[in-house]
Amino acid sequence: MKVYLSGEIHTDWRDEVEAAAQGLGVEFSGPVTDHATSDDAGVRILGAEDVKFWHDHKGAKLNAIRTRNAIEAADIVVVRFGDKYKQWNAAFDAGYAAAKGKALIVMHGADHQHALKEVDAAALAVVKTPQQVAKILHYVVSGEAE
Amino acid sequence: MKVYLSGEIHTDWRDEVEAAAQGLGVEFSGPVTDHATSDDAGVRILGAEDVKFWHDHKGAKLNAIRTRNAIEAADIVVVRFGDKYKQWNAAFDAGYAAAKGKALIVMHGADHQHALKEVDAAALAVVKTPQQVAKILHYVVSGEAE
Amino acid sequence: MKVYLSGEIHTDWRDEVEAAAQGLGVEFSGPVTDHATSDDAGVRILGAEDVKFWHDHKGAKLNAIRTRNAIEAADIVVVRFGDKYKQWNAAFDAGYAAAKGKALIVMHGADHQHALKEVDAAALAVVKTPQQVAKILHYVVSGEAE
Amino acid sequence: MKVYLSGEIHTDWRDEVEAAAQGLGVEFSGPVTDHATSDDAGVRILGAEDVKFWHDHKGAKLNAIRTRNAIEAADIVVVRFGDKYKQWNAAFDAGYAAAKGKALIVMHGADHQHALKEVDAAALAVVKTPQQVAKILHYVVSGEAE
Amino acid sequence: MKVYLSGEIHTDWRDEVEAAAQGLGVEFSGPVTDHATSDDAGVRILGAEDVKFWHDHKGAKLNAIRTRNAIEAADIVVVRFGDKYKQWNAAFDAGYAAAKGKALIVMHGADHQHALKEVDAAALAVVKTPQQVAKILHYVVSGEAE
Amino acid sequence: MKVYLSGEIHTDWRDEVEAAAQGLGVEFSGPVTDHATSDDAGVRILGAEDVKFWHDHKGAKLNAIRTRNAIEAADIVVVRFGDKYKQWNAAFDAGYAAAKGKALIVMHGADHQHALKEVDAAALAVVKTPQQVAKILHYVVSGEAE
Amino acid sequence: MKVYLSGEIHTDWRDEVEAAAQGLGVEFSGPVTDHATSDDAGVRILGAEDVKFWHDHKGAKLNAIRTRNAIEAADIVVVRFGDKYKQWNAAFDAGYAAAKGKALIVMHGADHQHALKEVDAAALAVVKTPQQVAKILHYVVSGEAE
Amino acid sequence: MKVYLSGEIHTDWRDEVEAAAQGLGVEFSGPVTDHATSDDAGVRILGAEDVKFWHDHKGAKLNAIRTRNAIEAADIVVVRFGDKYKQWNAAFDAGYAAAKGKALIVMHGADHQHALKEVDAAALAVVKTPQQVAKILHYVVSGEAE
Repeated sequence: MKVYLSGEIHTDWRDEVEAAAQGLGVEFSGPVTDHATSDDAGVRILGAEDVKFWHDHKGAKLNAIRTRNAIEAADIVVVRFGDKYKQWNAAFDAGYAAAKGKALIVMHGADHQHALKEVDAAALAVVKTPQQVAKILHYVVSGEAE
Repeated sequence: MKVYLSGEIHTDWRDEVEAAAQGLGVEFSGPVTDHATSDDAGVRILGAEDVKFWHDHKGAKLNAIRTRNAIEAADIVVVRFGDKYKQWNAAFDAGYAAAKGKALIVMHGADHQHALKEVDAAALAVVKTPQQVAKILHYVVSGEAE
Repeated sequence: MKVYLSGEIHTDWRDEVEAAAQGLGVEFSGPVTDHATSDDAGVRILGAEDVKFWHDHKGAKLNAIRTRNAIEAADIVVVRFGDKYKQWNAAFDAGYAAAKGKALIVMHGADHQHALKEVDAAALAVVKTPQQVAKILHYVVSGEAE
Repeated sequence: MKVYLSGEIHTDWRDEVEAAAQGLGVEFSGPVTDHATSDDAGVRILGAEDVKFWHDHKGAKLNAIRTRNAIEAADIVVVRFGDKYKQWNAAFDAGYAAAKGKALIVMHGADHQHALKEVDAAALAVVKTPQQVAKILHYVVSGEAE
Repeated sequence: MKVYLSGEIHTDWRDEVEAAAQGLGVEFSGPVTDHATSDDAGVRILGAEDVKFWHDHKGAKLNAIRTRNAIEAADIVVVRFGDKYKQWNAAFDAGYAAAKGKALIVMHGADHQHALKEVDAAALAVVKTPQQVAKILHYVVSGEAE
Repeated sequence: MKVYLSGEIHTDWRDEVEAAAQGLGVEFSGPVTDHATSDDAGVRILGAEDVKFWHDHKGAKLNAIRTRNAIEAADIVVVRFGDKYKQWNAAFDAGYAAAKGKALIVMHGADHQHALKEVDAAALAVVKTPQQVAKILHYVVSGEAE
Repeated sequence: MKVYLSGEIHTDWRDEVEAAAQGLGVEFSGPVTDHATSDDAGVRILGAEDVKFWHDHKGAKLNAIRTRNAIEAADIVVVRFGDKYKQWNAAFDAGYAAAKGKALIVMHGADHQHALKEVDAAALAVVKTPQQVAKILHYVVSGEAE
Repeated sequence: MKVYLSGEIHTDWRDEVEAAAQGLGVEFSGPVTDHATSDDAGVRILGAEDVKFWHDHKGAKLNAIRTRNAIEAADIVVVRFGDKYKQWNAAFDAGYAAAKGKALIVMHGADHQHALKEVDAAALAVVKTPQQVAKILHYVVSGEAE
């Protein structure tokens, strides 16, 4: 089973999910989580740009190579919305995954519930913690839900 | 040509686009823009819910009937990000449209440029104003760009 | 907008939906609702069969010509489960529509709630009455939910 | 070859098929067959619900993560209808598999023949026993039918 | 409803179907039925060929422009096998239509039953006469089977 | 690379192709080539039929489980037309493979050239011998054509 | 029938095709043929760019809105290669159309035959003149080839 | 990860990419790069042709077996345009890959920038050197961009 972990990159929630899901035979993928590298990979590899829009454009497209292939390959896409930032790329990934028919799991706190209602409506599960994601994966793989 | 106008619902930008595109033979569609109706349609039609999550869930799913059919039918999807709110549904629509291979036009101000770089990277045009959208539609239909 | 009305054929719920949705410009379709004709069309047109299985097989396949084309063409598929019979063809249609990405509305009474939980989980709305279906169609077309 | 065994969960027919198909190199999957776990996994992992509909909804959606991925991955989908219950999820799975172009095998007793005619009409084989399923798998893999 | 009439071109069965289906609002299409024109259109339009294979190749490809577009557009594909010739193009069309998920009706006499068993197995109806095709179309459109 | 060898089952051409392609790492599949088993597998496993049509129908559908899965999985589909019989299933497979976008290789003698022109027109190669098929596979895998 | 006329924009071949195809009920579309407008539409509507690459990028993406929608909608795509320029966009359109399963007609002079062999190999017809295109359209619509 | 290296075959750029990407676990594929073999494989295997068009046609179709399967299987398609020749097959591959939703990387010198603007507009990265391709692959696999 392949699982893509999209969204928030400022906490170690991916590590928590992966640790709690150890032994299940799940193959995880995700975006580049080093913020500076992710932002600047485009210009580092493809050459500098004077205009910020194109600087960002190059980086975002490089990241799309990684992201879209990984979402296409995934059986399950988990999207986490954190406390800060606009996180439009997370919502974009959720829409992309939904349109591709992927099983979608959305993770967020109670304060974002109303704002995320359309995203949640496309999900097969809405969770609050990495541990819940791991329990779902455990259930999907083994059929057990303690 | 069918164009879906997604995103921000607190200004009259849809009217501006439609007025400026008059005579082009474009058929426009969009989400329900009356905020209260959009939020409460679910419980009004399907029955009240005590828990806010399910209240919103019913509404978001009813809206999805309208939204997904309209995006599927569209040749072009325009997504506008305004100044306020999280607007995750707008980004979700953009991801959905991108995955369906729709021609995507994104509209936003300069202050959101960095936060929207992944969404912009999936677009065939990034604009600032409704007039630019109308000019693009005019160009696509008539081949003229004054 | 095209709407396919699947399922129970022993009450006049289709007439109720269509009457309540008049003026919306919705094009309705549905299965053959004359029970004897539906059961026997196969052998009437294609020749009699001694074995009941093949008698039914011929009829079911003729009906599939009508049903699958209509579901494919539909924007919305409504499936009603009545009080009697197994109604496996209704649940089959729901699964077929879900796999084709159609917007699914399921109608049934409270007594069938638990048995239909998997079908309901694939729906964008679960209703009890034909009037609710008409209200949803009205909302999807006009954006109004009184 | 991957085979998904859908439907009735109250007898050990899956074990019979798998035992009789041993050595063929077939990889089997199926739904969670522990009734209580399947019903309650949603609330156990995602939190309790006061309303039965949402209790069931959460569970059905968790199960859909497992079910839809497994049907998508399958080359052959076998759906068994037992003597009891409505089994609408079995018919839903059959419709889903048919729409996805999967090779469908339906298993049921003679008493359900008429009620299942539409489901049977979509199948490439209609059988009565687990042994017949195993013989079909044996034939498909080895080309032998003793 | 669009119906493509494939196969045998030496009798007037298409006229019979169309006459018997008059008033149903069915739009019929079919291959070019003038044998010489069909065989030679390629070289007439695109230039002569010394080698018979390429002479035929040019013609067959021109015909494919017409045929494949018409099959793609059709809701129902009818394929008639006559008494003479190999008619491999008819069987090819049947396979093509089946793979595209079209509702397939096959027409042939009893003498070809065994040889056509694989084609018949992919059909939703197997008939002997043009009148039966018209009755099916009548049933699919109106729900009546006298 | 996966190659499906469809069509004529009365000579050992499959063995010739496989022998000549040894060492290329190609995985071959094909229909059941024991004529009696192929014809009777349906009734042997699923129960006898009095009517020949249904006897054949059961067999043809069982074979379709094997055939369609193998064609779907194949990168290349080779279809051989022999000297005898109608071989409509071979032409059906060719049409099915073409519609699924498979690379199609057709094998036949010069005497069938005109009758197979539509099938040949859908092929990427038309050959006369098993050795030519093996040479093509060798070329596709290694890039060498001696 | 919808026909997209791609490629060379420096002669009036589109007018010739359309004039010769008058009365056939064919709906033609094509790229913007005013060279300066096509090149500069991006910056005119979306704002100037200092770097030539991004100047061109904006224009090419605006044109893609028009081009891809028109190719998607077309039944037949005609691609003409003229005497001058690299015309990589013409070849790109041919590849795009081929991958979308469109009926492809390629037009070019004898001198480009070898260089276009891969493009020609994907076509259902290779022609030299606009009159030949019109004759093909006439044949596809009417079945006549004088 | 699978990467198809399309386009120019007269320099050793494929070796450079593969050498620089060693250890990343990337599986590379590409066209036959021996010019004479690629041109003549068709007639060598399938028999000589007097007319140059058909000589080339046979070869181009054999190559299409290899090319299309490899592009379909690829996660990333790199297309390099060199200094010489028309290279329409490279642009055709780029269009084909774009229509199939593959991540596209285009490589060319500054002199071809304007002529390739439509191809570049479909790419997720535009590079000048094989080393840049390897850096992108390294970034996509490891998330590091030094």
